[in-house]
Amino acid sequence: MSSIRVTVWNEFVHERHNEAVARVYPAGIHNILAATLGNYSELLLKTATLSDPDQGFSEDLLAGTDVLIYWGHAAHDQVADAAVNRLQQRVLDGMGLVMLHSGHWSKLFKRLMGTSCALRYREAGERERVWNINPGHPITEGIGDYIELAESEMYGEPFGIPLPDEQVFISWFQGGEVFRSGNCWQRGSGRIFYFSPGHELYPIYHHPQVQRVIYNAVKWACPRSRRTEVPLHIPADKAPEKLEARGPALHDAQGKLLPGNL
Amino acid sequence: MSSIRVTVWNEFVHERHNEAVARVYPAGIHNILAATLGNYSELLLKTATLSDPDQGFSEDLLAGTDVLIYWGHAAHDQVADAAVNRLQQRVLDGMGLVMLHSGHWSKLFKRLMGTSCALRYREAGERERVWNINPGHPITEGIGDYIELAESEMYGEPFGIPLPDEQVFISWFQGGEVFRSGNCWQRGSGRIFYFSPGHELYPIYHHPQVQRVIYNAVKWACPRSRRTEVPLHIPADKAPEKLEARGPALHDAQGKLLPGNL
Amino acid sequence: MSSIRVTVWNEFVHERHNEAVARVYPAGIHNILAATLGNYSELLLKTATLSDPDQGFSEDLLAGTDVLIYWGHAAHDQVADAAVNRLQQRVLDGMGLVMLHSGHWSKLFKRLMGTSCALRYREAGERERVWNINPGHPITEGIGDYIELAESEMYGEPFGIPLPDEQVFISWFQGGEVFRSGNCWQRGSGRIFYFSPGHELYPIYHHPQVQRVIYNAVKWACPRSRRTEVPLHIPADKAPEKLEARGPALHDAQGKLLPGNL
Amino acid sequence: MSSIRVTVWNEFVHERHNEAVARVYPAGIHNILAATLGNYSELLLKTATLSDPDQGFSEDLLAGTDVLIYWGHAAHDQVADAAVNRLQQRVLDGMGLVMLHSGHWSKLFKRLMGTSCALRYREAGERERVWNINPGHPITEGIGDYIELAESEMYGEPFGIPLPDEQVFISWFQGGEVFRSGNCWQRGSGRIFYFSPGHELYPIYHHPQVQRVIYNAVKWACPRSRRTEVPLHIPADKAPEKLEARGPALHDAQGKLLPGNL
Repeated sequence: MSSIRVTVWNEFVHERHNEAVARVYPAGIHNILAATLGNYSELLLKTATLSDPDQGFSEDLLAGTDVLIYWGHAAHDQVADAAVNRLQQRVLDGMGLVMLHSGHWSKLFKRLMGTSCALRYREAGERERVWNINPGHPITEGIGDYIELAESEMYGEPFGIPLPDEQVFISWFQGGEVFRSGNCWQRGSGRIFYFSPGHELYPIYHHPQVQRVIYNAVKWACPRSRRTEVPLHIPADKAPEKLEARGPALHDAQGKLLPGNL
Repeated sequence: MSSIRVTVWNEFVHERHNEAVARVYPAGIHNILAATLGNYSELLLKTATLSDPDQGFSEDLLAGTDVLIYWGHAAHDQVADAAVNRLQQRVLDGMGLVMLHSGHWSKLFKRLMGTSCALRYREAGERERVWNINPGHPITEGIGDYIELAESEMYGEPFGIPLPDEQVFISWFQGGEVFRSGNCWQRGSGRIFYFSPGHELYPIYHHPQVQRVIYNAVKWACPRSRRTEVPLHIPADKAPEKLEARGPALHDAQGKLLPGNL
Repeated sequence: MSSIRVTVWNEFVHERHNEAVARVYPAGIHNILAATLGNYSELLLKTATLSDPDQGFSEDLLAGTDVLIYWGHAAHDQVADAAVNRLQQRVLDGMGLVMLHSGHWSKLFKRLMGTSCALRYREAGERERVWNINPGHPITEGIGDYIELAESEMYGEPFGIPLPDEQVFISWFQGGEVFRSGNCWQRGSGRIFYFSPGHELYPIYHHPQVQRVIYNAVKWACPRSRRTEVPLHIPADKAPEKLEARGPALHDAQGKLLPGNL
Repeated sequence: MSSIRVTVWNEFVHERHNEAVARVYPAGIHNILAATLGNYSELLLKTATLSDPDQGFSEDLLAGTDVLIYWGHAAHDQVADAAVNRLQQRVLDGMGLVMLHSGHWSKLFKRLMGTSCALRYREAGERERVWNINPGHPITEGIGDYIELAESEMYGEPFGIPLPDEQVFISWFQGGEVFRSGNCWQRGSGRIFYFSPGHELYPIYHHPQVQRVIYNAVKWACPRSRRTEVPLHIPADKAPEKLEARGPALHDAQGKLLPGNL
């Protein structure tokens, strides 16, 4: 099996500034994820954080990344628009994206969805049951009927997303809500998986089944083909079928709008 | 039948600066569309253009618009980001959007899709046959097997869009390409229809079947329900099920991230 | 507004043979539904049951039906295959179908879905909360955040259906399960809405919000266009583009496979 | 890479009874496909035909098949319903299915789709251009912009199928039609790919790009997880959450409808 180059990006704010979070993830969420995914020999892991050069989203790093895992919460606004532009382009070009938990509110996720990405939420240490509604899907391989999380943050419907291309998990919450907690989309040549469990106050990324879901998602999101989508002018004499151009034109021979039209 | 308030927005550039276009649409594309749609008594029509106050996208105008028809080509970059923000929000809140032809490259469409929206194109006056692949869909009511356009601009696949929620038309081009020319999406509470025929050099909006498609699309896109999606904090004592909050918290009682966490 | 011809079909078995059910629906589920929908003046209502001629699915009745509401549970196997054939054909031709509750296990629903339609279930009088996850959809018009049912039968995931074309409701159950309880599909020219609440032991169809959902679904499912899909041979001289037939052929001029090929 | 067990099933009628077909596929379509796929070492290939025991669809053969490739045209009606039942069940349980060309009209495909599967057709040796509209999809790996077939049977829209879960190819025909020629669905745990090129009179399966598409489709359709979907009764004392059953019941403790209810 060929290798998959995975970068785990974490804003790494709460772990450094909040004691309760630091107790759960002393080395940061990125490091627990990198450590556990590192047990799979076909994955080549790197980590990056907001305080790295280029906010951890350098051209070089992205160019060497097949699948990006993204965790953010407190510092979404600090991510530069230029980084978001690069990230969106990389996803459209084929890079896989595993967006975790509060990443639903990141600039990148909202950019790729085009919708509000709003939801209901509550932080009460309640029980969440993540139902596997798609037992034949690659992302649920090795996952049983459901994953039970003793303590979780409630994320509830309606969730302001486009209809997922594939629906994988739906969560039940003790307080009475439901949530589409595992959702797949393709955008451009890139595959996106959003997985909601992962509030930083609870040891959710220590849960072996949660780790397995993320591993499965990385394999699922790994690009097969890549293509950069750009507008492409096809002159009449390059048409697949023989064609003679007729009538007036607003574009020149290279397909650019003619000057003087503005 | 209750009324539908329709605004036809047109950047209105090529009709004023290019003689060939002016011959086809002397009063502008917005006016031909408003005139023909005006024959349907349940539609209340307004027009707006880029040179209007607020670029034709004022809060007031949008607040009084159920369905927006949008045509642009040469001046996409001139539309202010603030206007795009307002437009996107209105669509997510439930306003219908009928995006025409080169509007595929507008800031608004790219924002709502989250993808490149790139395509192949060629301006050679070639024949296009717009196949009705969804005869049971409301947007194809009264449309036969296909619409034949004697002269059209080629728009070809791959088209950089998310998979449409409903596929309505696929076009055949004389030069050998195909194109998904009629596509439906829901984003937030808003319905979006993209219809590709409509190059400004050819009298496509004079074609009765094209006019019928746009009328059908307006009815389809008209909002039934509306809702503004915002994050909603549900405190533990307001949970649908009886719930006692447990453990530490990063949010205050109103659901805001606590200070000192950054 | 033009009229919609609605037929409420009910197998009408449990109401006649079980006292507990008879107390909730003394005149049968079909009659409570017909009575409440009858309050909407644009709906023209008929009822039919399994003990009617042609099992309540006569050609004449179906020919005069725009939308069929279907309830069955104990007698799915008794519905004749010929009736299922007629029903499937009518749906593909454009008749709307509102499939209720245990109708998920009817021959008709399984035929239209192509999948197992299996689910988890439990009859314990537990609480169900039907979340509106699609506030902009016509079927949720007038429905708030959720419908709460004090007593319901649990239907749980995984539900063996194709991915819905539109997702409208997801249910939470007191016992810990979730369920996609309101799902839309288009098949041929027909629109199908499956709505799971409605166990015959509980007064669910007396609930005004449930009645409203069914009314909304009838309006949504009402056909705009209709078309019977049959294979269509297009001889070379009837092709849209000028075409000269080349090479050998397995079909005769009418498009039938030539004799001697078997 | 682990092996994939592939069975190529062909009705094998026209190759034995029609000289023109026999010239193109002297050993039958199944053998050319098995031979070319056999070049990929991870594929373990078997072939089967209608004249085999159990019509080539024995329990044993299917139990040892990860992905089934299916070609049929003249003898769809001869396939026994019992075989179709087994096949459908196997697909829902996770077996991949690559349905080729005129297999669109097989009992199996119609069963899995639930729709008419009707289309337009014409046998005139015309040019087909199969456009790759999804360059990032695993099925288009190694395929360029399009595959050009010098001679093909026209299959045209509207095609009576459910909206594909993923759209991969759309074809252009010389005679003026278009067709969704490469379509993906998931049904149960099984993945289905329909690929329309392949009329038996033309050497389409000798085309390297067509062979590559079929190879890619086999890899894509290979099951990761499997699950047989059956109704599952969850008694109140086995509910995930603590639950006390209330009220009357129509089912016994095993979840069967109580006798006397009919």
